[in-house]
Amino acid sequence: MSGFFHDLEQLPTNTSVALSDLLSAAKWNADGLIPAIAQQHDSGEVLMMAWMNRASLEETLSTGRVCYWSRSRQAFWRKGETSGQQQHLVEARFDCDGDTLLLKVDQSGPACHTGRRSCFYLRLTPTAGEIDSDPLMSKEELYGGKR
Amino acid sequence: MSGFFHDLEQLPTNTSVALSDLLSAAKWNADGLIPAIAQQHDSGEVLMMAWMNRASLEETLSTGRVCYWSRSRQAFWRKGETSGQQQHLVEARFDCDGDTLLLKVDQSGPACHTGRRSCFYLRLTPTAGEIDSDPLMSKEELYGGKR
Repeated sequence: MSGFFHDLEQLPTNTSVALSDLLSAAKWNADGLIPAIAQQHDSGEVLMMAWMNRASLEETLSTGRVCYWSRSRQAFWRKGETSGQQQHLVEARFDCDGDTLLLKVDQSGPACHTGRRSCFYLRLTPTAGEIDSDPLMSKEELYGGKR
Repeated sequence: MSGFFHDLEQLPTNTSVALSDLLSAAKWNADGLIPAIAQQHDSGEVLMMAWMNRASLEETLSTGRVCYWSRSRQAFWRKGETSGQQQHLVEARFDCDGDTLLLKVDQSGPACHTGRRSCFYLRLTPTAGEIDSDPLMSKEELYGGKR
């Protein structure tokens, strides 16, 4: 194994590299996307996972407001532009091999399109899956009939 | 939008469905994989993201020890089988549209192959990326020269 991220592994803590070099070496998939995990910065709750391309990550880092790439709409998805439930960026991180992002965010209201706080509301057991959280608001309240 | 996960959205909290139905409806990608986020169950720290196929998820749920699918090795990856740093499953969850898993785990030692606790040690700023955590142990200690 070699490459930019591999070479970084053994460098001392506080080593800094240019963002543009990091983004050029990052492992965007065949569609130019990387999965981004959104975590509420203070509670630690994992809210959702969505996808970013290079432009949406650059926009997120410069504006401080989280912008994903919508695979279904093939368009920028500025979180909250329809629902009003924005995500403000507190911190962004790449993982060791440059193929996943972790975003620590401040999420107002529900992160999930169902009106629930988190998308991860289906808890698994060895034999079943169970819904274990209530919506904070209805989809009608969230989207005003727009979705 | 329709389908199994969409139909679940509006059902009341505590609704339970059979695991086999959930796994049949889950949105495995073209390679039969779904991304799985591993989060330390008590601290909330996001440790890593890896991939699971249906068989590795079923094994994980039944044994309580996390088993991923290694895309590079095209084989089951029972976390800790080389490094000794196992992940024990506390809770597994699907997201709203059935294309991502969240695993709450109890991770012994480093989750990252670099010897760091978490894989997400590259913090981004608008212009740079910075290494911000030290390894807990060297790769030699972790793999005994096996990697």
